[in-house]
Amino acid sequence: MIASIEIRTRGQGLYEITDRVEAVVAQAGIDSGLCTILIQHTSASLTIQENADPSARRDLERWLARLVPEDDPLFTHRAEGPDDMPSHVKAALTSTTLSIPIAGGRLALGAWQGIFLWEHRRQGRPRTCVIHLGA
Amino acid sequence: MIASIEIRTRGQGLYEITDRVEAVVAQAGIDSGLCTILIQHTSASLTIQENADPSARRDLERWLARLVPEDDPLFTHRAEGPDDMPSHVKAALTSTTLSIPIAGGRLALGAWQGIFLWEHRRQGRPRTCVIHLGA
Amino acid sequence: MIASIEIRTRGQGLYEITDRVEAVVAQAGIDSGLCTILIQHTSASLTIQENADPSARRDLERWLARLVPEDDPLFTHRAEGPDDMPSHVKAALTSTTLSIPIAGGRLALGAWQGIFLWEHRRQGRPRTCVIHLGA
Repeated sequence: MIASIEIRTRGQGLYEITDRVEAVVAQAGIDSGLCTILIQHTSASLTIQENADPSARRDLERWLARLVPEDDPLFTHRAEGPDDMPSHVKAALTSTTLSIPIAGGRLALGAWQGIFLWEHRRQGRPRTCVIHLGA
Repeated sequence: MIASIEIRTRGQGLYEITDRVEAVVAQAGIDSGLCTILIQHTSASLTIQENADPSARRDLERWLARLVPEDDPLFTHRAEGPDDMPSHVKAALTSTTLSIPIAGGRLALGAWQGIFLWEHRRQGRPRTCVIHLGA
Repeated sequence: MIASIEIRTRGQGLYEITDRVEAVVAQAGIDSGLCTILIQHTSASLTIQENADPSARRDLERWLARLVPEDDPLFTHRAEGPDDMPSHVKAALTSTTLSIPIAGGRLALGAWQGIFLWEHRRQGRPRTCVIHLGA
């Protein structure tokens, strides 16, 4: 089964989408199977990270922003602004697709794991994830 | 269903393989499902990136080459030359497997997304990707 | 089919789990299909790397430890010690889920590929991977 969800971001940052994905799994009524998520963009990405302490996500964002700064003279691809090319690099270093087993009708994530959409562009925008559910 | 494709690279760089994977999906006649790709190497990798403006890919390659330079004195694994160990690091930072939903008989990629094989070795060689297609 | 395996780590490093995963595939008696692995932690991760020469894995570990050092003043998330936040960054840069085709009753890995659990915390602990096997 294929579904898709839209997430409207409000600028750079990690947006938890675990509940959105769980809702798709629940609606499909799948007890045991596999849930695969693809984000249909190359300037935003996916990651599974700690969803308890927000300081972990803040540090992660700041660390990656420092590794891939906007004012890098190496970048020539600047058509959409200085945050364009860093977004592609950050996406390449994280994930575009994730596959999560489903057990007992729920995503089999660890106790502290959440699924996050990582917006790398300064300006928020609607982002689409395609979800495949299989047996 | 399992298939495999061989891509002959001509040195370092990003090689788009979207059409090759689409051809496998089309031949299998799958309307809705999941396509998983594994690259059977540890000195080349996979990534989903922008397939419109080639400057984005060029910047991405140059950025990663600068992050993981060949002449790093940290590297002791040099049996196959100075580009050997950087290749493994680059592969670990990108992807070895990707899973892409299939909808309407086609890969459900975003409008600007392409699947790329990323050759990290200086010398081109034949590379094999194994493809699994499921319902 | 869903299974889970526990791996007891003994501190930072790459632990090969290929045999453990192969055993789950063999026990399930699946000839052709897909094996997906999720590690249920955010301070350890998964990677497919060379399993022949141990110097490649040692260099990879040392390279990532240098990229993400413990004493980085940027990190504020230190509740569990100085190795806590670097662990989350390292996990984000590598993989939390991997999907590997199964052919002829075995994982369709390349000749030199192995699946590794990457422990990023100084102190070893039990780690759980959930495995989904599909047709």
